[in-house]
Amino acid sequence: MSDRIVLAYSGGLDTSVGIGWIAEETGAEVVAVAVDVGQGGEDMEAIRKRALDCGAVEAVVADARDEFAEDYCLPALQANALYQDRYPLVSALSRPVIAKHLVEAAKYHGASTVAHGCTGKGNDQVRFEVGIGALAPDLKVIAPVRDYAWTREKAILWAEERGLPIDVSKKSPYSVDQNVWGRAVETGFLEDIWNAPIEDVYSYTQNPAEPRDPDELVITFDKGVPVAIDGETVTCLQAIQELNRRAGAQGVGRLDLVEDRLVGIKSREVYEAPGAIALITAHEELENVTLERDLARFKRQVSQRWSELVYDGLWFSPLKYALDDFIANSQQHVSGEVRMVLHAGRAVVTGRRSEQSLYDFNLATYDEGDAFDQTLAKGFVQLWGLPSKIAAKRDAQK
Amino acid sequence: MSDRIVLAYSGGLDTSVGIGWIAEETGAEVVAVAVDVGQGGEDMEAIRKRALDCGAVEAVVADARDEFAEDYCLPALQANALYQDRYPLVSALSRPVIAKHLVEAAKYHGASTVAHGCTGKGNDQVRFEVGIGALAPDLKVIAPVRDYAWTREKAILWAEERGLPIDVSKKSPYSVDQNVWGRAVETGFLEDIWNAPIEDVYSYTQNPAEPRDPDELVITFDKGVPVAIDGETVTCLQAIQELNRRAGAQGVGRLDLVEDRLVGIKSREVYEAPGAIALITAHEELENVTLERDLARFKRQVSQRWSELVYDGLWFSPLKYALDDFIANSQQHVSGEVRMVLHAGRAVVTGRRSEQSLYDFNLATYDEGDAFDQTLAKGFVQLWGLPSKIAAKRDAQK
Amino acid sequence: MSDRIVLAYSGGLDTSVGIGWIAEETGAEVVAVAVDVGQGGEDMEAIRKRALDCGAVEAVVADARDEFAEDYCLPALQANALYQDRYPLVSALSRPVIAKHLVEAAKYHGASTVAHGCTGKGNDQVRFEVGIGALAPDLKVIAPVRDYAWTREKAILWAEERGLPIDVSKKSPYSVDQNVWGRAVETGFLEDIWNAPIEDVYSYTQNPAEPRDPDELVITFDKGVPVAIDGETVTCLQAIQELNRRAGAQGVGRLDLVEDRLVGIKSREVYEAPGAIALITAHEELENVTLERDLARFKRQVSQRWSELVYDGLWFSPLKYALDDFIANSQQHVSGEVRMVLHAGRAVVTGRRSEQSLYDFNLATYDEGDAFDQTLAKGFVQLWGLPSKIAAKRDAQK
Amino acid sequence: MSDRIVLAYSGGLDTSVGIGWIAEETGAEVVAVAVDVGQGGEDMEAIRKRALDCGAVEAVVADARDEFAEDYCLPALQANALYQDRYPLVSALSRPVIAKHLVEAAKYHGASTVAHGCTGKGNDQVRFEVGIGALAPDLKVIAPVRDYAWTREKAILWAEERGLPIDVSKKSPYSVDQNVWGRAVETGFLEDIWNAPIEDVYSYTQNPAEPRDPDELVITFDKGVPVAIDGETVTCLQAIQELNRRAGAQGVGRLDLVEDRLVGIKSREVYEAPGAIALITAHEELENVTLERDLARFKRQVSQRWSELVYDGLWFSPLKYALDDFIANSQQHVSGEVRMVLHAGRAVVTGRRSEQSLYDFNLATYDEGDAFDQTLAKGFVQLWGLPSKIAAKRDAQK
Repeated sequence: MSDRIVLAYSGGLDTSVGIGWIAEETGAEVVAVAVDVGQGGEDMEAIRKRALDCGAVEAVVADARDEFAEDYCLPALQANALYQDRYPLVSALSRPVIAKHLVEAAKYHGASTVAHGCTGKGNDQVRFEVGIGALAPDLKVIAPVRDYAWTREKAILWAEERGLPIDVSKKSPYSVDQNVWGRAVETGFLEDIWNAPIEDVYSYTQNPAEPRDPDELVITFDKGVPVAIDGETVTCLQAIQELNRRAGAQGVGRLDLVEDRLVGIKSREVYEAPGAIALITAHEELENVTLERDLARFKRQVSQRWSELVYDGLWFSPLKYALDDFIANSQQHVSGEVRMVLHAGRAVVTGRRSEQSLYDFNLATYDEGDAFDQTLAKGFVQLWGLPSKIAAKRDAQK
Repeated sequence: MSDRIVLAYSGGLDTSVGIGWIAEETGAEVVAVAVDVGQGGEDMEAIRKRALDCGAVEAVVADARDEFAEDYCLPALQANALYQDRYPLVSALSRPVIAKHLVEAAKYHGASTVAHGCTGKGNDQVRFEVGIGALAPDLKVIAPVRDYAWTREKAILWAEERGLPIDVSKKSPYSVDQNVWGRAVETGFLEDIWNAPIEDVYSYTQNPAEPRDPDELVITFDKGVPVAIDGETVTCLQAIQELNRRAGAQGVGRLDLVEDRLVGIKSREVYEAPGAIALITAHEELENVTLERDLARFKRQVSQRWSELVYDGLWFSPLKYALDDFIANSQQHVSGEVRMVLHAGRAVVTGRRSEQSLYDFNLATYDEGDAFDQTLAKGFVQLWGLPSKIAAKRDAQK
Repeated sequence: MSDRIVLAYSGGLDTSVGIGWIAEETGAEVVAVAVDVGQGGEDMEAIRKRALDCGAVEAVVADARDEFAEDYCLPALQANALYQDRYPLVSALSRPVIAKHLVEAAKYHGASTVAHGCTGKGNDQVRFEVGIGALAPDLKVIAPVRDYAWTREKAILWAEERGLPIDVSKKSPYSVDQNVWGRAVETGFLEDIWNAPIEDVYSYTQNPAEPRDPDELVITFDKGVPVAIDGETVTCLQAIQELNRRAGAQGVGRLDLVEDRLVGIKSREVYEAPGAIALITAHEELENVTLERDLARFKRQVSQRWSELVYDGLWFSPLKYALDDFIANSQQHVSGEVRMVLHAGRAVVTGRRSEQSLYDFNLATYDEGDAFDQTLAKGFVQLWGLPSKIAAKRDAQK
Repeated sequence: MSDRIVLAYSGGLDTSVGIGWIAEETGAEVVAVAVDVGQGGEDMEAIRKRALDCGAVEAVVADARDEFAEDYCLPALQANALYQDRYPLVSALSRPVIAKHLVEAAKYHGASTVAHGCTGKGNDQVRFEVGIGALAPDLKVIAPVRDYAWTREKAILWAEERGLPIDVSKKSPYSVDQNVWGRAVETGFLEDIWNAPIEDVYSYTQNPAEPRDPDELVITFDKGVPVAIDGETVTCLQAIQELNRRAGAQGVGRLDLVEDRLVGIKSREVYEAPGAIALITAHEELENVTLERDLARFKRQVSQRWSELVYDGLWFSPLKYALDDFIANSQQHVSGEVRMVLHAGRAVVTGRRSEQSLYDFNLATYDEGDAFDQTLAKGFVQLWGLPSKIAAKRDAQK
């Protein structure tokens, strides 16, 4: 039997051409695998057929939308994961689930090798290869665009020479990656970091500057999982989709930042993630109500490290797994409701309530019913400040 | 000579009554000290006279506005200090500078004791007492409201009996603390954390939901210090004031959260800090451009710890001082310009440029001029992922 | 029925006198509870009878030795818990298990209050009271020594007046707390921190300076649990006891340090913990072999925080529980054998082997069989150093 | 003028042969640079002459011993830097100072390139190349052993063919790197991690198991710098040398561990660092006496990160510089004396005294003179435990 190579297939020019090119270069049969992570756009069945038309021996579409929402987006939500305090890890989350499906396909189809279309200066090559290496240490990985300096121009020429069924004329000026958790856009004019994004860049969000009525909603969480919106039960995927729709309509979740890539360079990135930002905002405030202070403080460090690991391609890694257990433990009381107003680019929490609340009205109130024993404070303050007071006395002697 | 007590004086009912009450209880003379940290409102000279009218032997107003901006707000800006990732430490920053002026006044006026009007369930008692203890370990501190269960009702009665020149009828429903870095509001109906704030709560900010035109500006930083707005040179104080005005007019900087107090309870707090939020937003993005990745990552942990220490009353403490040096080191290249749009409650960076930039167009671009050597990536990816790959192999053997 | 108070009873002068004193002061009946955490010394049944002779209505001895070893010492071992990198948390570990038994006794005997004999300047009052508060938030706690300024002199007088069956003449010059995990000693002459400990201070360990033959042994761990010594199966308690014996005979585990107490002061502490130090040393090295690098690095931070929390009396606290889950996750591959030489005060690992090892001879060897692909290194080194290189270029331009 | 290449020259077979080989391969002139970091062994002038005999156009010896001690070892001492809590960074510290001298020589001699003799699986290639890249971003670096798969066998053949003045017969079974801060040994039989080191492996230390008399000494520190031993003023270099001698004679500082290399593999390393371990032990205890608690706790995290950065080749990096400022700040009060006994492989602190001490006898003593106000404790304990108590109440309701 011929050697087989599983190709991460998007349906676009590069990977369509890649099918034939890889087959020719390696003599192997190419199995195209497209993974649906809620990227929308073209019909997945059309993508599957194109792969066959381009020479794949097998073409598979994996519907990973619920799996992606529950096993990848949800942990990110529970971690309040924002790389550089801003970026909700849109592409960084989809790479491991795609890697998982590539590995499964490779095992099923008896492939020795996985191929992906990433360049050598981005993060995604790392996420794919490290992920595949962790899931199937013996699989080989090739990256034609990076390792053979494959370019768009070469790809067009190749497609035209062979009459592949790809419309090479419609070149988008944007390089886009999108899934249900958000959308990333890069494009030439944004590489000048003084230039502002233009409205044309966006697709998941309406212009926040346009006047419109606010949208108010209530999100219900159960142990850190969004389970209802306005009282209506939702799956995790539905929660994200619904908030993409409603928060997107209000222009929530646009991001524009200079980012530190794992390969050592800074890049300028524009994102839109309306559902992710709205959900994280609500979840953070419910944690403010339900997490004990020391736990909340340490969890911020855990979230930062978790975000760095996932950004850096280490989803399937021992430290990530151990942090997962920390975060899972922290979520057991994160249940309750958050009321939120979406408007003009902002998702603002206006109310929260929880049977697991640690907010104690009687301890907090300054009105009638105050149960806080203020006589305890003096001793607390004195001993709390004792180390710095002793140090100050010492310093004064100098 | 009689014993003297320095009282932190606000001009309000509690501390006005406190002058006479402390004198009577202790037999000491009371020196009233009011510190101007940009809280606005009543004229400071009127406040000074009221103190004398209420029985103070001396009454002092310290104009600490520039000092507060440069020595307290600026370090917070350079730290991007946001307690719980949200609260820019408005009151937490003013307490140490007030403590410093109280201590100076105590030394100047030969006082043995400092008095403050804080309750026993808030953070400010800690900030005052720990701050004073670190600056002058031998000064005594008394807190009549806390230690003698002094209440508003008792204060009114006392004022009326003695005919003090205080209008006790105008009771505001809001408990407010404000300075140039922001404004904090507490009030009875917000103690139900499901209730939303109403427009009446706010003073520094306009309603972000009202339609108005956006405001665009350029902030220039030099080594982490905001030095110009739209090309016009500003002091640190002026930068904050100007941004309070312009960002406040766009409704930027409203915050509503459940917060973990140092004394162990959760409380609900509403803040407005238009200048602080706009400046921190700009500063963070300029750091994204000018800080090396590992430094930026560790600085987030430093910022969190710095914010906790300042929130917890440990401004004058050895760890705070050492973190200050870390942060100061990190700011030496944080120079450049940030363009920002203020609108509808949001401060959004749309451009950044810096001669100290670490963003390298030639390494980042996917277009002509790409100088990144992609052949390096394969080795990097392989060794980067090697530990998790070895661990995965081990795990698979089980 | 009379109110009842459960007293943490040690059998010593203070708590023996406390039985009658508390009864007299409060009018309540006193239930004495002694917890065996392997402290050795006096027979527990004799202690129980003394409590009755001193006026307790009930006297209970709880044999918590296995529970203490498995649920308290073992997590500390798995955390490699050393407060200030030195102190294996001897007393800090026993307080929560004692608190648990006090609470259980209070519920069983219908007591409203728990009493302990700690002073107001140590850590143990915090550990008892915070622990009891977390386990039974409604129980009251009293601390006669602290809250009523009870002194040794008053206690002796009281005992003599009432003819209590306590030998008040044998005053030890040492204040000792001991359990199976170690032994803590304080005494007057050591309060001068320039004075060296004398041999008389020690009880668990022989003088390491005396010549004797080394002792070699092999400890087997299964998922972070010591399960055999020299091939012989042991319980957790037996492992500690056996290593106390063998490591103690070689003078291993003596510690002498100035320590930061939670109440804000520094104190001088002398400890001996032969079993704890030997076990932690072995466990750390087995982790070096079986934990992936990033996990090992982060676990050091977790261990430090875990140790601080336990030292600070927060055993039963949400952050501690979440860190426990992190640590538990990290232990799943910590299985294998460690060979160790005990001699002259040192426990030295000389060999380690594990089927879960991540040490790969073929990747590590410089001899025949080398499987490491050195051609990968160049790309790795270049990209690893890229951020600091870009920063260096920037800095050079200034 | 011909192109020139600066070669990091040790005097050994590999780099001696490298001189001619590099010249032949590249057509460039080779400048040999040997850096004296206290490695001892062969006379540096003999090494210099050998380089010329082997074909170097220039041969330079840089005496960097004091510089190495003051600018590299001292910061490590002040950080208490122990990678994996064990390894005092012996080789990791010398690489950056050697890199600095290589870069200086390259500039002085007009070289375009630096060459080093490291393999592709160790840490030192990273330390050299990243260090050189940070100091002189435009210098090229070549690594013949790694990039051209140069082996010992090829080197011997080459030396014999050309009659180079190198004795190729004396092959040591040990691969050694040493400097004044310590000594690292690797060798074939230790690659089996179950094998124990044999006595023959060691050179800086005597066998700790042999009976001998203890050695007691007093080290004086001034702001974190060791300035006297037994009252006699020493330079930093002298302090390390004297303690190498005296601690080495007692067998102090032997280490044997499995270590996580930066390139992703685990390796087994044996070290001896008698002076480093004795000095760090003394310095840590003096910090226990002079550092405030919160500072001491955070400094442990800083030390860990500092050690990782230095181990990972990032000596000349922005984060390292910022951590240096944190550490420098922390050292301003680390002054005083530490008495220490060296014996049988252990360096044990037995006394410490300091005018900067934060240990307050009157607060610590349980005897006469106790100045600690125990009435403060109750309030402190109650509020300290309040968050976990509130959480416990909540949890109990479930």
